[in-house]
Amino acid sequence: MSRWEPNAPARLAQAAMELYAEAGYEETTVARIAERAGLSERTFFRHFADKREVLFAGSSELQDLLVGSVAAAPTSASPMQVVSAALQDAAGWFVDRRDFARARQAVVSSHAALTERELIKMARLATALAKALRERGVEEPAASLTAEAGVAVFRVAFERWVAPNERRSLAEIIDESMTELRTITSS
Amino acid sequence: MSRWEPNAPARLAQAAMELYAEAGYEETTVARIAERAGLSERTFFRHFADKREVLFAGSSELQDLLVGSVAAAPTSASPMQVVSAALQDAAGWFVDRRDFARARQAVVSSHAALTERELIKMARLATALAKALRERGVEEPAASLTAEAGVAVFRVAFERWVAPNERRSLAEIIDESMTELRTITSS
Repeated sequence: MSRWEPNAPARLAQAAMELYAEAGYEETTVARIAERAGLSERTFFRHFADKREVLFAGSSELQDLLVGSVAAAPTSASPMQVVSAALQDAAGWFVDRRDFARARQAVVSSHAALTERELIKMARLATALAKALRERGVEEPAASLTAEAGVAVFRVAFERWVAPNERRSLAEIIDESMTELRTITSS
Repeated sequence: MSRWEPNAPARLAQAAMELYAEAGYEETTVARIAERAGLSERTFFRHFADKREVLFAGSSELQDLLVGSVAAAPTSASPMQVVSAALQDAAGWFVDRRDFARARQAVVSSHAALTERELIKMARLATALAKALRERGVEEPAASLTAEAGVAVFRVAFERWVAPNERRSLAEIIDESMTELRTITSS
């Protein structure tokens, strides 16, 4: 982390996403991504392990945010309230990232290996959330069920949020999906 | 499928599971599995692509069973009732497979690549169930949320069912987990 490269990860991610859309994911090299971002390959590798990780670096950030939010929730909140509030925090994090999320979704969903990677990340997220709930004193199986239900709501809401003609905010769609889940499970 | 080899897939699966437990998953070869089952390697490859697929052949069978059950449910049933009934059908399928499921779980959970494969299979199962629900006329996002919630219940229940000292039936644990999910989402 020697030279001053303002906002290097974001610039690299933006460049990668442009190239994945223009030239295709397979065809894009790290050299081209770095060039487009006006940075060196060396800088790329300081931030990402490979061109795939440009797509998944955000997943770790998202997981840290959700886990942190669960840990910081008031003790009076029910497990589902805790997870709902965490998902709303995540929605806040995504507010300015819709275009990026759409471009990313297009790449991920058109490559089986990337889709599998995404599924694994989501499953890991549920495991991490369940752990964070247990650390708040929520017992099993409630911790795992709440975490899995929360991730299910997030996945479904996120997919709708990135759909071409969707204009509502992620916060609103999460809220609606959470209500829908409540209706479903009680009928 | 020329020669008469009664129950070859089950014999191969049983032999594989024994060897995975005794000698380890990595160390076990298809040749050894076939030998233990008293069958040829050729017969092994008639039923399984490789030694990993011995562990996952059941996942496809399970998916077909669940999708079939959803498709055959009475039209009057709510989406969650349909999925609950399908999970109970799955529980019936597993009744005589607890020892096998425990041995399998031990192998899968101690290998990261196998655990990832399992997560992918479960995610695919949710996708297949959502599709089966849409084909019954359930709209999105209800179809996906119901499917994801159902798979979450199944995963959590299954993990408890294979736990060392658990004696209750899978049917009972699924039922309890479903009730728990209802409580969680409404609080």
